[in-house]
Amino acid sequence: MAEQTQAQQARTQAPTTGREWHLVARPDGWPVPEDFALVEVPVRAPGPGQILVRNEYLSVDPYMRGRMNDVKSYAPPFRLGAVMDGGAVGRVVASEAEGFAVGDAVLHGLGWREYATVDAAGAVRVDPALPLQAYLGVLGMPGLTAYAGLLEVGGFQPGEAVFVSGAAGAVGSVVGQIAKLRGASLVVGSAGSDEKVRRLTEEFGFDAAFNYREGPVAEQLAKVAPEGIDVYFDNVGGEHLEAAIGALRLRGRAVLCGAIAQYNDTTPPAGPRNLALAIGKRLRLEGLLVGDHYALRPQFAAEVGGWLAEGKLVFEDTVVEGFDQAVAAFLGMLRGANTGKMLVHVAA
Amino acid sequence: MAEQTQAQQARTQAPTTGREWHLVARPDGWPVPEDFALVEVPVRAPGPGQILVRNEYLSVDPYMRGRMNDVKSYAPPFRLGAVMDGGAVGRVVASEAEGFAVGDAVLHGLGWREYATVDAAGAVRVDPALPLQAYLGVLGMPGLTAYAGLLEVGGFQPGEAVFVSGAAGAVGSVVGQIAKLRGASLVVGSAGSDEKVRRLTEEFGFDAAFNYREGPVAEQLAKVAPEGIDVYFDNVGGEHLEAAIGALRLRGRAVLCGAIAQYNDTTPPAGPRNLALAIGKRLRLEGLLVGDHYALRPQFAAEVGGWLAEGKLVFEDTVVEGFDQAVAAFLGMLRGANTGKMLVHVAA
Repeated sequence: MAEQTQAQQARTQAPTTGREWHLVARPDGWPVPEDFALVEVPVRAPGPGQILVRNEYLSVDPYMRGRMNDVKSYAPPFRLGAVMDGGAVGRVVASEAEGFAVGDAVLHGLGWREYATVDAAGAVRVDPALPLQAYLGVLGMPGLTAYAGLLEVGGFQPGEAVFVSGAAGAVGSVVGQIAKLRGASLVVGSAGSDEKVRRLTEEFGFDAAFNYREGPVAEQLAKVAPEGIDVYFDNVGGEHLEAAIGALRLRGRAVLCGAIAQYNDTTPPAGPRNLALAIGKRLRLEGLLVGDHYALRPQFAAEVGGWLAEGKLVFEDTVVEGFDQAVAAFLGMLRGANTGKMLVHVAA
Repeated sequence: MAEQTQAQQARTQAPTTGREWHLVARPDGWPVPEDFALVEVPVRAPGPGQILVRNEYLSVDPYMRGRMNDVKSYAPPFRLGAVMDGGAVGRVVASEAEGFAVGDAVLHGLGWREYATVDAAGAVRVDPALPLQAYLGVLGMPGLTAYAGLLEVGGFQPGEAVFVSGAAGAVGSVVGQIAKLRGASLVVGSAGSDEKVRRLTEEFGFDAAFNYREGPVAEQLAKVAPEGIDVYFDNVGGEHLEAAIGALRLRGRAVLCGAIAQYNDTTPPAGPRNLALAIGKRLRLEGLLVGDHYALRPQFAAEVGGWLAEGKLVFEDTVVEGFDQAVAAFLGMLRGANTGKMLVHVAA
């Protein structure tokens, strides 16, 4: 025993099988549980340059719905009969890679499985002093999406008024807080329940918020932002985008980040009927993918990490317990069951 | 007589009355001749710092339709019972302003009248060596719109593929030619008649063109630009914009310049149902008004004027004879009767 390496020790402790969630059918409209299968597979020992990770938290994200369709898009479609890729954090349980030791906390992209055998190049060690799940949310892809979207694509400037849809979600809740911290004159948001609306103003510091299910978005937006807005951060599409185009002031910007309202539509949604207003108001609408903005990561980590450390920025997760609940968590997220980041807690 | 100044001489030659076209009713949908009235008014002698201009050509433009509605927009609405403002060129017949002599060719914005009494600050002397009407078209507002829209708002780069709708119009025909002269890999356009389509390729140098009345725009666009486009210059809105969003490649840009397809709609038009594609493709849609780009005028005048002088850029006007035909010219322009700039020739 004395001559075993740490890696060998860890390997002997690793289990021989683990579970994965596979996509087994492409949904037509809303996904259903039958589109997925829980599969038990052998755990592959790490080869040279690889690590074995026991996942602790999995990410379920809106963009995954798009990857379930067999269409060319920015991310390749999920393969049928294969695991649902995506963000996950866990601990190294065996390492054959330099720079990774057993017990290290890591972030990787191999998704919905209990154990992942990861190439070292595909894993990032994260600060174990911070909550692990923050790397899937406020300090991870959703946080960077909010930061880059508001500041780079949206060109937000201090003193401007910002409207965020899906504002209680993983991205939206961070957008609103960054806007306030960066000097917005007004930050308003929409969400799909009174409880979320309450949290927007009481916990996330929005100036005002409304429940979009309670009346026309344009009317409710006009009440909370009667003088209009300069930046609209769109997580929703549909009626929200049309209302925002109406409310945007001269040279306003719409950051097109998501369109969750229509991801499960089987017929094309209505487009904004007032888009011609963009001419006279010289509006700019621009699509955002976080992958274009990785150069911002150091600045993002310093600024947002600093706000977190100072307690100026808060985050909230909605954590679903149990690996077997991953599909339920995903479907719940698509229906808006979460406040902040929706996560699956894998290991008790 | 020998002691009269030139201005006094000219003033004595000036007529005492002239005609104007007034807007007398706000159209609901398509304008009709009854919305306008031809009115005879006294010609006002120029005061200090003013000139009296006998108009030779009047401009009729799509944006004027928007100004006929009583809504807040980038340009104030026309007043009822007042003259239709707009671009006009003519000759000075009396001057009380320094820098303007009788006989000078000038451009001003006082619109649909035979004689205009213009503040010197509101008039620009133009080069009498060039055709006067060019200052209402290729060297004027439509030309600068094309230039600034393609290069500044559209961010066109050599080697890119460009699609222009309303391509046989005053702006579109210049956009396509500038794109070719600046090194586009492909320039395609749409227009509303086979004759216009023929001119696009045979006279204006487009690589390909189609008649949008002959089939779905998306299908016809896919035939002429099977590998997609990088810049879409939108003069039309509606189905064209949706087709272009589908055809735009990664990081493509849509310049929103006009939406003539819907200016006379009384119900909101359908918006582009595929706008969510802008997220994954990181498209940028941006509104264009020429007034934001006056700083480009010297560069525009040098580059486009140079191409004109070298015969590399051609332009075409559709000239309607007679001041009394101004309304007919305007209505014809809205229906696409023109190739290139639609003008009214005031004086025989």
